[in-house]
Amino acid sequence: MASHDLYEMMSTLRAVRRLKPDPIPDDVLARVLQAACWAPTGGNMQPWKVIVVRSPERKAALADIYGPEWHTYTGFSRRRAEKAGVAGEELAKLERTLAAGDYLADHLAEAPVLLLFIADPAKMAITDKNLDRISMVGGGSVYTAVQNTMLACRAEGLGCTLTTLHCIREPEVKAALGIPDDWATLALVPIGYPIGKGHGPISRQSADQLVYDDTFGAPWQG
Amino acid sequence: MASHDLYEMMSTLRAVRRLKPDPIPDDVLARVLQAACWAPTGGNMQPWKVIVVRSPERKAALADIYGPEWHTYTGFSRRRAEKAGVAGEELAKLERTLAAGDYLADHLAEAPVLLLFIADPAKMAITDKNLDRISMVGGGSVYTAVQNTMLACRAEGLGCTLTTLHCIREPEVKAALGIPDDWATLALVPIGYPIGKGHGPISRQSADQLVYDDTFGAPWQG
Repeated sequence: MASHDLYEMMSTLRAVRRLKPDPIPDDVLARVLQAACWAPTGGNMQPWKVIVVRSPERKAALADIYGPEWHTYTGFSRRRAEKAGVAGEELAKLERTLAAGDYLADHLAEAPVLLLFIADPAKMAITDKNLDRISMVGGGSVYTAVQNTMLACRAEGLGCTLTTLHCIREPEVKAALGIPDDWATLALVPIGYPIGKGHGPISRQSADQLVYDDTFGAPWQG
Repeated sequence: MASHDLYEMMSTLRAVRRLKPDPIPDDVLARVLQAACWAPTGGNMQPWKVIVVRSPERKAALADIYGPEWHTYTGFSRRRAEKAGVAGEELAKLERTLAAGDYLADHLAEAPVLLLFIADPAKMAITDKNLDRISMVGGGSVYTAVQNTMLACRAEGLGCTLTTLHCIREPEVKAALGIPDDWATLALVPIGYPIGKGHGPISRQSADQLVYDDTFGAPWQG
């Protein structure tokens, strides 16, 4: 197995939404799933599971849920962009992303594997649950594993992207995969070999935009 | 800069809670922060910031909040373990973890850097916000960056651990660092060079415990 440089993997992990239906070899999939298992979780409780969805019926059931939600989202995105006066290269970039998302939504059932990450809130100490804002800390014991998974996909030459739109219709997702009521679904990650170039350059804000020095709003000088 | 194998980093990223006060060189810290910035987020919105807390006063303020919460937590942990009849090697392991946590709590202000990850919920599309369960999806746009950060720490030889206990007293944390009311705090990650061996073997469940095949509860055969 080839060695893969950590920073090279991180800096080229972009969303890949056009996936070939070609199957993923067992040993490749095993390494991706092992990467998920290595992730840290609160109190090392590992309160998550991942369902590897590969049967045509269950992939179709998830696609039937995801597709309409995606198309609702793109309508919203376009209206918001119009309202904000987005134009030129920025608009063209948005349209490219939405077109790739349209492809994913319309071909979701053709991806060889859909990974659905779920978690049991009863196994988590959710420290922000009593605050006067929406809770987020539960994700801290699951998205670490999702990020490991996606970095492993990058290393294995598999395209992937983190999606959460299915949550809007979570009860239907649970019914489709037999997930108990008291579990939560956190991420649907379609994976497969890329149709195009796959991973490559990413567009991100730089550290001087995202990092503060000692206190909120204080510019980071690097 | 040396190359670091992705899987080697993931499989040895354990919580390191005993940190030297030695400063972190600027170029090392810059690479760790860059790794955070590379992480994927919903709609590429990058709704998070990280505050690099280095001043003695502000580190002390965070330590004064974290310490008592940690000691409350360990009391709870020990009572729960006693109730569950935990004994022998399992109890010894718990006590080792709690002792390392005690060290961290009692020396938090001595770590050279405390990274506080915060996020603006207004910049997130939180798809599980209307469900009849606690929300977790907001974390999907922040803990990807936290995991990148910790993997980068591993690569740079820095110890680290993801903590969230400060959330219980979030208003005080916000006051200490000038964080606006409408922001959320998601992770406090102390980083520094390890006093002991630092990163190494980790104890995790295996794929056949965490992975299901196509539907909830169906054993994964690998």
